[in-house]
Parts: sequence; structure tokens; C-alpha cells
Amino acid sequence: MTGAVDTALVRDLTDDEARAALVCKWGEVEADVLPAWVAEMDYAVAEPITAALHRAVDAGMTSYPRPGGGGPLGAAYAGFAARQFGHDVDPERVVPTVDVTAGVRLALDVAAGPGALVMPVPGYSPQLAMAAITGRERRDLVVHPDDERAELDLDQLDHHFANGARALLLTQPHNPWGRVFTRAELEGVRDVVLRHGGFVVSDEIHAPLVLDGREHVPYLAVEGTAEHAVAVVAASKAFNVAGLKCAQLVTASDRLHEALVSAPMARNDSWSVLGVEASVAAYTEGDAWLDALRARLTAQRDLLVTLLAEHLPLARMRPVEATYLAWIDLRAYGHDDPAAVALARQRVRLAPGHDYQPGLTGHVRLNFATSPERLAEVVRRLASAVAPRAT
Amino acid sequence: MTGAVDTALVRDLTDDEARAALVCKWGEVEADVLPAWVAEMDYAVAEPITAALHRAVDAGMTSYPRPGGGGPLGAAYAGFAARQFGHDVDPERVVPTVDVTAGVRLALDVAAGPGALVMPVPGYSPQLAMAAITGRERRDLVVHPDDERAELDLDQLDHHFANGARALLLTQPHNPWGRVFTRAELEGVRDVVLRHGGFVVSDEIHAPLVLDGREHVPYLAVEGTAEHAVAVVAASKAFNVAGLKCAQLVTASDRLHEALVSAPMARNDSWSVLGVEASVAAYTEGDAWLDALRARLTAQRDLLVTLLAEHLPLARMRPVEATYLAWIDLRAYGHDDPAAVALARQRVRLAPGHDYQPGLTGHVRLNFATSPERLAEVVRRLASAVAPRAT
Ligand SMILES: Cc1ncc(COP(=O)(O)O)c(C=O)c1O
Ligand SMILES: Cc1ncc(COP(=O)(O)O)c(C=O)c1O
Repeated sequence: MTGAVDTALVRDLTDDEARAALVCKWGEVEADVLPAWVAEMDYAVAEPITAALHRAVDAGMTSYPRPGGGGPLGAAYAGFAARQFGHDVDPERVVPTVDVTAGVRLALDVAAGPGALVMPVPGYSPQLAMAAITGRERRDLVVHPDDERAELDLDQLDHHFANGARALLLTQPHNPWGRVFTRAELEGVRDVVLRHGGFVVSDEIHAPLVLDGREHVPYLAVEGTAEHAVAVVAASKAFNVAGLKCAQLVTASDRLHEALVSAPMARNDSWSVLGVEASVAAYTEGDAWLDALRARLTAQRDLLVTLLAEHLPLARMRPVEATYLAWIDLRAYGHDDPAAVALARQRVRLAPGHDYQPGLTGHVRLNFATSPERLAEVVRRLASAVAPRAT
Repeated sequence: MTGAVDTALVRDLTDDEARAALVCKWGEVEADVLPAWVAEMDYAVAEPITAALHRAVDAGMTSYPRPGGGGPLGAAYAGFAARQFGHDVDPERVVPTVDVTAGVRLALDVAAGPGALVMPVPGYSPQLAMAAITGRERRDLVVHPDDERAELDLDQLDHHFANGARALLLTQPHNPWGRVFTRAELEGVRDVVLRHGGFVVSDEIHAPLVLDGREHVPYLAVEGTAEHAVAVVAASKAFNVAGLKCAQLVTASDRLHEALVSAPMARNDSWSVLGVEASVAAYTEGDAWLDALRARLTAQRDLLVTLLAEHLPLARMRPVEATYLAWIDLRAYGHDDPAAVALARQRVRLAPGHDYQPGLTGHVRLNFATSPERLAEVVRRLASAVAPRAT
């Protein structure tokens, strides 16, 4: 982060552009619906990534990618981790995988050993099924809606590990909590895990999206974690390239690296060759764009706070320290499923809270990675839907 | 297939182009090694595919693809199956998945029910691990090297199903057998499966690569298979786009379709948005290129027969009815691992037979999807390595 941030690097997509580019977020809603649901940003992809993709297509790179770890992707991620997080990663121990969720599954299947999986909840909805998919019981580490801060409950974690849990699926920074865990908090996790001989899969997909100049501490950068943790990282969320399908598994021990790379091919050979090219471009040429993005997201987050105060004064939102996903408690407005009400009454699509915590009522997740105008409209529509003013 | 075949549509890559494009096949061997191993072709990607990729990148399509089945991809595959195989597919029952191997895994996990997996052997090497990955025992349906024809042994299949097997992983056309199973053969399979209430996953990735005007009969086009079979198809082998990561699951029953689409997202949400675009282009605009490709591969196959007769007269090769992969019995030359000998002595990389059937000696798989000149050089090098002439 030398020099001034060039905020103009982040370009808003028009509605038409967004509909063409974001075929899930914008394509899966009707034309009059404003989409603020799935975790994708209404911004144009960074130019170095687009250029790398065109070059790769011109070179005819449509075939199987380079197998195994290390290589240009390993070097690119190691450089990025050093610059962005001050984290020393061995490039050879960076192993590609198709996406973060598949990487979590692989790590659990081949490196974690058997036993229940502890899941911080509310949690990224598709991963709530991860325990079942990997043949485990799920034990939840719940943040109660009334809790002032979203924190990892170490007593509860200790209790789970003492009662059959084997692994923790740590998400950090956390979606949808919006938390950046501090080094002290992560050391607390480590101590519990070490006490029980447990395992950690650390989903750090949102690591580049830390706001307000906070520090992202990779779990593997915490002393004493090398022998019990696999991190799963990707350029996908920060650079809006989740559809290109390339994530990375990072380890800091020979044993765990070996477990990952000796898995049968049929468990891990699905990453895309263009995803590799896009990721290398993002990691090596994306810093300036990322600086601009964080500035933009910080402004959007601040705008959201202002808009909520004005239009939904009874909404509760904990500080959003990272990601572009706001977890909003609307229980005061009395709707079980405010996302459904907002869609039906005001044509705005948010993600329903119960997707992240089954049975939870009154919560929504709101994606603020859009233009200020759209964000204002999203909040206005949400407010009109769930808290119509008496006229 | 109206009109003349324009063979010029298939363009040979130069060595330099191949090294840039095929980062696995050409990139993973040293500069003096001629690669004839992994199943990719030394031909330029069809122009409609390249054009579609550039368009998609220009539109900023890097985000999550459209979820669920049907859509443009379903329609494109249904059209292709109708034109190419005379097969009537419901576009809504075409469900994307990241690649064929992942699709096989998904079908086994969510649709097949428990029980051992029958695997025709020699078989596609990464899938030899599929039984273990899906928590099953493997039962092999072996073609003995001395068998005149490579056939599915129905008595053996019946025996396996009678003794705990639940599912058959049918590969058709078969790699590396080179067989196109006839309708009568497939009816024989169906009868055995129906007798035991078994299940079939039909890997039809090589379906468009049927040579000599033979007919590919989709397993689901055989009467009475709808309730017990999932087909896995892709444009990837025929159009050289395996690195773009999009395959399709096809069913012909509501129950099996439902089983696939109701699987948790974390089991099946990894296909790439650019893979979808490439597949749609291949299926809708690729027929002329495919005609040219089949003509080219037929000529290459014929050339290989001639070259073997001249340089390796003791080699045995059954008729190659489909694919661009030749299974060659070199036992007469007395090497346990002729692929290793060829690489060490003459710098040509073939796939070793024991990858496809553990313990098998004296066999290689040779990829003939290259230029006539390179194919001649591959066979000359192989012959010099395993059968050096007395001087
Ligand atoms: C914490 C977390 N992990 C994983 C993902 C999804 O990543 P992928 O698409 O690479 O599986 C998301 C998406 O928003 C996420 O928030
Ligand atoms: C029979 C068969 N199935 C599957 C594959 C691989 O397909 P994918 O890369 O889509 O898993 C191959 C590759 O050659 C193959 O021969």
C-alpha cells in the first residue's frame, strides 16, 4: 500500500452489464428485482485479470492445468500472502483445488481424521452440509442474536472437542459475522485444539477483504498450528472470479502437504486452467485494484450504517470488520422471514438469515458491494417492506 | 453430416503452440520428450469456442454460473444428442457438474444406493479409485490381454451383482478398450442389471469420438434403463476443453433427476461459468469441426495400424472403434513397463498399461491425436526403444 489509492480502478457495472456478467446474482432474479443476495460484487473485473484471460484463450489454454502444487500459482499466492498479510508461505505447499468448499471437503476427507465437525453458526450456508457430506456429526458453535459481539465461544469449543469433535471449520474473516478474529482470539482457538489433539480447516476466502486497515492473521501464522491445520484460500471473492474455479490449499507441515497431494486424483483434479491464470494475475497484479476495492467497500459499509440509522432505526448490525456482507437483525420489525417479505413487497432480494442458521427468524444478510445509489435503493426498499410508515 | 467434410477445420498445433496451450500434456514433459500420454489433442480449439470465450470474458462473465439444470446448456446438449446420436433428451434433465469424474462420484453418492462397484478393467485410471472414494468395494470386470475382442463379460457381471455389487461404472465408448458397445451388448447389460435391481453410471465422455461412421448408443437410449441409470457426458474430450470444467449429468426419470438436483450444493456447485459458455458453443456450433475431427482421427488410426505393422510387427492392437487412444499389447517385446523404457531410451511419453490395470505388464496406451509426422515419430521412437534392431 504505497502511494495514494486510485479509487477509480473499481468501476460500477450498469444494470445491463451486471445482468450479462453476473449470471447467477442478476440472472436468477426477475428484471424488476434488485439483487443483494449471493456474495458477488457489482463491479467490473480488474483489468489485469481480463487481459490474462484473453491471452490464455488466444494461446488455446483450454486443456488440463498443470498438476500438483507449487508452480506459478504457488509463487503468486506466496507473494500475495507476504505482501498482504506479512505471512511466509512455502510456494511448494500451495496446492490448487477447484473451489474453497471443495477444498474444505478434501481437507476433511484426507487430513482431518474421523470425528464430529464443529461449525461456527450462523455460517456460510452450503457448508452447513459439510459435516454430513464428510460423514460426520455437526456440532454448532452458536453466536446468539442478542450477543453484543460475535465471538468464538472457547468454552463451548472445548466442550465439543471433549465430547467427540475432531475438527473445527474456522471461517475467518467470518461470513456472515463480519468479524476479523484477532491474533489473541486465534491463539485461544489454537490452545483448545492443541489440548484435545484436534484439527482445523481454516476457510480464509475473505482474507483480502479486511476493512479499516485491520490485520488479517492467517491461522497458520499463529505459532503452533502447523501440524493441525489446513488453510483454504482463493482470489475468488476479493476479485469477483468465483465462477472461474480455482482455490488453493495451504499447509505448513510436510505431513499435511503429503496427505493433500497424495489424495487420489478423482478427489482433486477439477480446478480450471483459466482459473489458474486469473488467480495468478490477481495475486501478482491485483494489489492496486484491491486497495481501491477496500476503500470502496469501507465507504459502502459506512453508507449502510447511515442508511440503516435513517430508514430502519430498530435494525441491529454489529460492526462489519471485513467482507461486503452485512448481517442484520430485523427482529424488532416482527417478521419471521424479512427477506421473503422484502422480495414479495418491494422486489429486493436479500439472503434469508435462516439459510445461515436453520430456524433463526428475523435476520437477513445484505450484500453491499454495489453502487451507493443501488445500496440506498436496497435499504429504502427493505425498509418500505418490513417497516412501512403509517401514512 | 450434410455435405463434404472440411478437414482443414482441424489445425495442427506447432510444438511451440502445443507447449503453450497444453500445459499438462506438453508442459509436464521435458523439452526433448514427445508427449503421447494424457488424453488431449494436439489440435487448435474450434473457432466458435474461442470466440465464445472471448465474448464471455469481454462481458465480464467470471462469476457463479446459473444454478440448476436446463437452461441454455440443457437445450444445447439436447440438440447435440438429437443430431449426433438420434437421442431424445429432455433439456430440463441435463444438470451441470464440474467434470465427468466428479459427475460419476455424485451419481454414485446420491443416486446409486450402497454396495460394491463393478469396474470394467483395464479402465480410466483415476476412476479405479472411485469405489474407494464412494465407500465401496471394487469388483473388476476384466478383459484378459489374450482375449480376441474386448467385451463386457455378462456372466461375470451377473456374478458380481449376485454377490453384493450394486452399481456398474460403464464407460462407453470405452477408454482404453477403444470399443463402441452395440445396442445388443448394452441390452445384455441392461438385462443383468434389471435382474438384480442394480444401477448404472454411464460415462459417455467419448461419445462424439466414434469412428468409421459407427453408431454411439447412449445407455439411456436403450429401453428399460431410465429408472436405473445416470449418464455423464461432456464436450470436453471431443473439443479439447477439459480444462474449462463443465460436464453434464443426464437422466430420464424424475426420481433420479430429483436425486441429483436435491443434492446439497457443496456436493455439486463447482462447474465453471466459462466451461458452460464453451460447452454451449461446442454443442451448438461444433458439428462441422467434429466431422473434420473424426475424419482426421480415422486417418490417424489407420496410419497407426500401418506404422505398427512396419515398426512393431509383434504388437497387438484390437480394432480402435472410438477415441484417439490406442491400447497396445507389447508383451512380445519382453518389457514389463514398455512406457518407462520408451521414455528413458527414446524420449517419448506414453501412458503405462499398469495405470489402467494394476499389475498388468507389457502394455501401453498411445494417444494418436496429433500430426501424422509426430505419430510416425512416436512409433519410430517406441520401436527403437522396445525393439532395437540388431545392427
Ligand atoms: C466463507 C465462505 N467460504 C466459501 C465460499 C464459497 O467459495 P467457493 O465458491 O470457492 O466454494 C463463500 C462464498 O461466499 C464463503 O463466504
Ligand atoms: C472414460 C473417461 N472418463 C473421464 C475422463 C476424464 O474426464 P474429466 O476430466 O471430465 O473427469 C476421461 C479422460 O480421458 C476418460 O477417458
